[in-house]
Amino acid sequence: MTSTRLPVLRRLAFVRLTQGSKRTGSFGYDLAVRKKAELRDVILDAARTEFARYGLAGARVDRIARSAHASKERLYAHFGDKDALFRQVVAADSAKFFSSVAVRPDAVAEFAGDLYDLATNHPESFRMITWARLEGIPLEEPQLDGRSVRERDTAAIVTAQAAGRVDPRWDPWELLILMFGIGMARASWPQADPGDVDAPAHAHGRAAAVEAAARILAPRPD
Amino acid sequence: MTSTRLPVLRRLAFVRLTQGSKRTGSFGYDLAVRKKAELRDVILDAARTEFARYGLAGARVDRIARSAHASKERLYAHFGDKDALFRQVVAADSAKFFSSVAVRPDAVAEFAGDLYDLATNHPESFRMITWARLEGIPLEEPQLDGRSVRERDTAAIVTAQAAGRVDPRWDPWELLILMFGIGMARASWPQADPGDVDAPAHAHGRAAAVEAAARILAPRPD
Repeated sequence: MTSTRLPVLRRLAFVRLTQGSKRTGSFGYDLAVRKKAELRDVILDAARTEFARYGLAGARVDRIARSAHASKERLYAHFGDKDALFRQVVAADSAKFFSSVAVRPDAVAEFAGDLYDLATNHPESFRMITWARLEGIPLEEPQLDGRSVRERDTAAIVTAQAAGRVDPRWDPWELLILMFGIGMARASWPQADPGDVDAPAHAHGRAAAVEAAARILAPRPD
Repeated sequence: MTSTRLPVLRRLAFVRLTQGSKRTGSFGYDLAVRKKAELRDVILDAARTEFARYGLAGARVDRIARSAHASKERLYAHFGDKDALFRQVVAADSAKFFSSVAVRPDAVAEFAGDLYDLATNHPESFRMITWARLEGIPLEEPQLDGRSVRERDTAAIVTAQAAGRVDPRWDPWELLILMFGIGMARASWPQADPGDVDAPAHAHGRAAAVEAAARILAPRPD
């Protein structure tokens, strides 16, 4: 009896042990990780909405916590203070923003149109980047395949210049800044509210940006 | 003697009269007005510095009051709340900012260079206008000689188009937005700090803006 009962007891003990370990150990850990990652995303989303609207100084952590159905304590535990949370949202947003468009050597002028779409379709990201500039928070340049987005885009301009598609007299970096200025001119206009722009006005503004870019970069006979 | 003394007495009386009226009347009143106006200017200057740096939400009225050597109570009595003070600074700043440059029909491309100078030389005003945009505070268009700055500038473009100096295919308003985009491209760049731009870089950036504008607006043979 002792010999048969002992394994049963051992098995029971093992089951209890593993069940216990599942709750507090590996399975429980996976769930916790998943929940942790989910909560992280929910908080980041809530923070993005809050920061895009009110900026760093105007944002309120209690509003973010309430919107994410999390306690302020958990939010602080995950992200540190409001400043650190802002920096994380800006880093994620600007990386996504600047990586989502690229200069194509065979259609450089279209880049101004892509930027126009970007600023119009993602006003929150555009606002976040602008708040960050005003708050003096430097944006890290997104890295793609071991080089910065800026390096990738200036290299594309150099390629287009070598192919005779872009006036070689332009400093590629200077031209890139001008493309941004043109593409984001309407969204940067003091009275602008990108949400107010209807579809025909959007198409009109976009076409003007591409046309302006094309005229700037066109190689000249002289 | 009487004929010579009387004028003297009259003169003395006149002096006393005007001195008296100056002390208790107009001059005393002038002094109070001057002090009030001076305090107003001192507070506005302090507020401009504070708001340009920290924005509406981040600015602190006690810092403005301390910097202006005024009590918070006096500040509130003069300007209302922080929001009202911000709006007054923005209105004054943007009116000055946008009125200080104008499109000249015989040198439209230079407008992009003038805007470049403006954004570079007055980064605080540029910051104020940007904060206001993010805070959703609409800027009233400055009025000059009974018309808005925008009307004045689009009219100048129309004149330049009629004179064959600007491609008539451009919508004047669209072209004006593009000029702003180009002129302020560098100051709007996320990593930009206009204070960091040295003189040669400034001249280089300005020349690029004017060249870009000239290429955009040049009439085309086709």
